[in-house]
Amino acid sequence: MQIDPYGVWSDIQAIKKNSPLIHNITNYVVMEHTANSLLAIGASPVMAHALEEVADMTMLANSLVLNIGTLSPLWIQGMMLALKAANSKGIPVVFDPVGVGATPYRTQAAQSILNQNPVTVIRGNASEIVSLNENQVVSKGVDSLINSSDYQEQAKILAVKNECVVWMSGQTDVITDGHSSNLVHNGHPLMCKVTGMGCTATAITGAFLAINKNPLLGCTHAALLMGIAGEIAAEKCHGPGSFKLAFIDTLYTLTLDEIEGRLRVETL
Amino acid sequence: MQIDPYGVWSDIQAIKKNSPLIHNITNYVVMEHTANSLLAIGASPVMAHALEEVADMTMLANSLVLNIGTLSPLWIQGMMLALKAANSKGIPVVFDPVGVGATPYRTQAAQSILNQNPVTVIRGNASEIVSLNENQVVSKGVDSLINSSDYQEQAKILAVKNECVVWMSGQTDVITDGHSSNLVHNGHPLMCKVTGMGCTATAITGAFLAINKNPLLGCTHAALLMGIAGEIAAEKCHGPGSFKLAFIDTLYTLTLDEIEGRLRVETL
Amino acid sequence: MQIDPYGVWSDIQAIKKNSPLIHNITNYVVMEHTANSLLAIGASPVMAHALEEVADMTMLANSLVLNIGTLSPLWIQGMMLALKAANSKGIPVVFDPVGVGATPYRTQAAQSILNQNPVTVIRGNASEIVSLNENQVVSKGVDSLINSSDYQEQAKILAVKNECVVWMSGQTDVITDGHSSNLVHNGHPLMCKVTGMGCTATAITGAFLAINKNPLLGCTHAALLMGIAGEIAAEKCHGPGSFKLAFIDTLYTLTLDEIEGRLRVETL
Repeated sequence: MQIDPYGVWSDIQAIKKNSPLIHNITNYVVMEHTANSLLAIGASPVMAHALEEVADMTMLANSLVLNIGTLSPLWIQGMMLALKAANSKGIPVVFDPVGVGATPYRTQAAQSILNQNPVTVIRGNASEIVSLNENQVVSKGVDSLINSSDYQEQAKILAVKNECVVWMSGQTDVITDGHSSNLVHNGHPLMCKVTGMGCTATAITGAFLAINKNPLLGCTHAALLMGIAGEIAAEKCHGPGSFKLAFIDTLYTLTLDEIEGRLRVETL
Repeated sequence: MQIDPYGVWSDIQAIKKNSPLIHNITNYVVMEHTANSLLAIGASPVMAHALEEVADMTMLANSLVLNIGTLSPLWIQGMMLALKAANSKGIPVVFDPVGVGATPYRTQAAQSILNQNPVTVIRGNASEIVSLNENQVVSKGVDSLINSSDYQEQAKILAVKNECVVWMSGQTDVITDGHSSNLVHNGHPLMCKVTGMGCTATAITGAFLAINKNPLLGCTHAALLMGIAGEIAAEKCHGPGSFKLAFIDTLYTLTLDEIEGRLRVETL
Repeated sequence: MQIDPYGVWSDIQAIKKNSPLIHNITNYVVMEHTANSLLAIGASPVMAHALEEVADMTMLANSLVLNIGTLSPLWIQGMMLALKAANSKGIPVVFDPVGVGATPYRTQAAQSILNQNPVTVIRGNASEIVSLNENQVVSKGVDSLINSSDYQEQAKILAVKNECVVWMSGQTDVITDGHSSNLVHNGHPLMCKVTGMGCTATAITGAFLAINKNPLLGCTHAALLMGIAGEIAAEKCHGPGSFKLAFIDTLYTLTLDEIEGRLRVETL
């Protein structure tokens, strides 16, 4: 698999051109930031969670984003209905198991979603990925306690088990289908000082899956966009407050030249 | 009807002086941005949705803002109770039928709200307005698929049907009571790249209705404020991230001179 | 009690070093801003409210933040379970009675929380504090109608009644355990033009309580951090939009020198 700046750029152009509708069932904390990130790259976000309409909305969408950050029983039921609808129509699905491992309810909810119907991509930090595999690591809130490079194997195990692509975020991002893996080295520590950057990565993955038929490639392109935009924003800002808006600005203004100058990816 | 900068300015000064309390039952995505926009113009926002208090809160308010963006059954029930309370006390109401036409549940919820009690203003994009009239257009998320200038007639039909003012947003904003209409040409394309600018227009309308007894005039002033602030913010920003905050800054700092220099309105 | 810049600084360093986990059950409007404020000072925020996990999450946390801004019955039940869990393990609790006095339901919910289990700190504006004492003042939304300096006595009464520390926000902040009181004179009027600055003060108090065993001192340090960061941000911004992000930036970059140059506190 060839990962190069032109492939990333081509996907970004396709998102701008087609403006795919991304149905997000996500947490309260990050809704605005993820909606603005999707708009900035040219996608069209919609948020809807009521049992009464969630399947109908998914059927209109080009991809589905599920995020359990502020889960509750009705929202999990809504996710189940949306996931079933997405599967029935072949709509790609990204799943973000926020905070899995922190509480039994959260772990159980994530497992019941994954056991019900396949997802296209799981994106989480290392402690969340390991928790999905082993059910034994307690995460410290939504932060990763584990150095992701030590845990590449765990990402592969989860990918094989769920027959999906796994994107494990960390200092190095691991994107794998269990057989091929890409390591993305772009990014900046300030990204951990703004809430919802992981959730934003998940939402943006939804946009890439909507226009790229290869989830491993689309997911890797999304990771590169996130990491490169994060680096540029970090250079322009004065702290995490101005970082957040510089990140959105950069998603909107990013050029092929900037991608070419910064892309750092390894294919294994 | 005379629309001039002094009328807009006079309403803005009245909002700053009286700091009207605006009760918002709105969607999760835009709550913070609409609250900050209301604070920036000098109004006092409150958000409350529980069935147990929603009518009591409305009775304290100077206007009520209803927005179905992330609707669910309990929230719609809350909106019904608040609307009834507002009507019982003559408190003006703005209704934003976000995404109407996208799903049957959403369309049904909007219709049941409108059938129950009168509202003062309906604000939506062209596809939402047409959906309320015809129940047949499927919107692409919350984006308008229809050029609003082609659909002025639809705004008039809805205004007559509901005996209210309709503000149809788009490149040109149409504000009509079914008989007289004002066309506002201010605004900037970046406003479509930030989530919740339509919802913010709705919330700000609530503030104008609270201090201006003429809804057609108040609504037109609100549309001019939104459009002019959007133009100024677009000139100061580097993308949609910085646009969002420049917009709030501009709402706070806008001068009569800036309004005089930019106002572009037609009265039909 | 000695309040000096070194004590404030020492607490800030301890938060950065220990990165305490702060469990927030708070309102929809301010979730993102409070999470970002906690991250900016080095704490680790988590938001979870489902009855099925709320106690488990609290047991993992170093402090608990309860805020009734957009309350509803299930959320209040969740707060009750979390509070009970926190008390069982000696985890400090901050309670923000947003809008108490505005509606009977809100007042009743706040009282039932306070009657159930002790809290470490109550933080509110003067009208909220007085409402908790007297049940008779109707607040204008969440804004304070009462000059806080006239109401120091009310803060003391509430502190004695609930055997806790009370932080009454206003132009002058009063922090008292009913016997000793500290008055913080730092702050800036723009802080009232951004939603959720009070809620952010509450959340940040959670971080200070997690690392400082003396709630009166920790709370006073939190008030000084808020006020000083607010002053610095006000000097850097162009309105409430840019204020909001400058405030987060300042939380992240604040130096001991800046604290020394600005701290204005009285011990009574």
